[in-house]
Amino acid sequence: MIIGFIGFGKVSKNLIELIKSDEITFATSLENRSDKTIKNAENHDIRILDTFEEVVDASDILISANSPKSAVEVAKKYGKFCKGIYVDLNNVSPDTTVKISEYVEKFVDGAVIGKIDSTNPTVYLSGEHANELLFLNEFLNVKIVDDASKLKLLRSTYTKTLSALLIESYELSKKYDLTDEFFEVLSLTEGDEFRDKSLSRINNTQNSLKRKSEELEEILDYFGDDLEMVKAAYRKFSQ
Amino acid sequence: MIIGFIGFGKVSKNLIELIKSDEITFATSLENRSDKTIKNAENHDIRILDTFEEVVDASDILISANSPKSAVEVAKKYGKFCKGIYVDLNNVSPDTTVKISEYVEKFVDGAVIGKIDSTNPTVYLSGEHANELLFLNEFLNVKIVDDASKLKLLRSTYTKTLSALLIESYELSKKYDLTDEFFEVLSLTEGDEFRDKSLSRINNTQNSLKRKSEELEEILDYFGDDLEMVKAAYRKFSQ
Repeated sequence: MIIGFIGFGKVSKNLIELIKSDEITFATSLENRSDKTIKNAENHDIRILDTFEEVVDASDILISANSPKSAVEVAKKYGKFCKGIYVDLNNVSPDTTVKISEYVEKFVDGAVIGKIDSTNPTVYLSGEHANELLFLNEFLNVKIVDDASKLKLLRSTYTKTLSALLIESYELSKKYDLTDEFFEVLSLTEGDEFRDKSLSRINNTQNSLKRKSEELEEILDYFGDDLEMVKAAYRKFSQ
Repeated sequence: MIIGFIGFGKVSKNLIELIKSDEITFATSLENRSDKTIKNAENHDIRILDTFEEVVDASDILISANSPKSAVEVAKKYGKFCKGIYVDLNNVSPDTTVKISEYVEKFVDGAVIGKIDSTNPTVYLSGEHANELLFLNEFLNVKIVDDASKLKLLRSTYTKTLSALLIESYELSKKYDLTDEFFEVLSLTEGDEFRDKSLSRINNTQNSLKRKSEELEEILDYFGDDLEMVKAAYRKFSQ
């Protein structure tokens, strides 16, 4: 079996590291890719083909994992040539997912939950052909749901707004010189990992405020703009 | 040693159950108390005196645990007669704590963190005489900090706003008929207890929306009204 990748960033790289099987060959192309991607691919056991057309043609499973912005374009360009299952793993909205599915025959909507580079990441899949990917459970945690993109977006309403709350509370604790005490007192009820987990969330968010703010905009577009807490998080990230 | 109580509700009741020592006698009065309080006291090993004046006079440690509203009044009425340590355990703001301290000589500000009816609750204490209460560590978790009320209020900015976020996300998951999926997907990153803990927070909050909303108002009064997330939680609770 051949699993092909369009896009060879963190997600693809980690999937290859997780899926170890003599029966599976990986393939991608480095056509017009960045130096970083080329280096990434060279360090992995993956067959490099000259063009993405060849990758699409050879793949039993084709994984699109590039960027939210190019996800539709990739489907438009390659979807019609894909005879296998086309899995979109980009972080796109439910509306964008519908657009992508229109260019592809055997479409599976996929959503990576949490960190892809953990030892047992979870990927939610949906679509008529999702069941055919259940064999991947041998290598990672695969769950079939009705609408992976919608569920991921719903999850984001909580996680991204929580990050905004953490940033606000953390800033307040710094203002009053009570940061250690703040984390300590909350660890009593939120668990021992509260400090590390919160600081990691705060840093991740502050390093990509613009993207987080765009994602919150997408949430408000999709779920409606009467979400007081999400709106406040959006304002906080746009400050 | 005599530990006296002004107020015999949940906090006092649970403290008596936790502090088991042959050397400690508990005392309170049932003067003008509700039937519920009288019943509560009758079920516990506590000496009932005729008046609160007698309780105050007899106590080496006097615990005021009645209600945020009556905390100042209690201090005003009994503080001056208290020769021992006066511990205020009411959920009051740092400003109210300062007011209370003005009526009392040996004042200790106390804040119960989390649930008082757990097996090992934590009580934060502050004030010149707080160290004299460290012996209570034998029975519960006592921590000395610079300003217990301020730390408790800072903690509340996080926990109460988190409850507002949980309510909003939970309502959204119900709207899309994805409640089970919502809790399941979040458990992957937030821990196995996420569902139970969240539902418990949601219920507690919805059962006392008015009080929670007043507490958020107090937070905004004290820490300033530029807290976007707390303000949104306040709006959510006042809807």
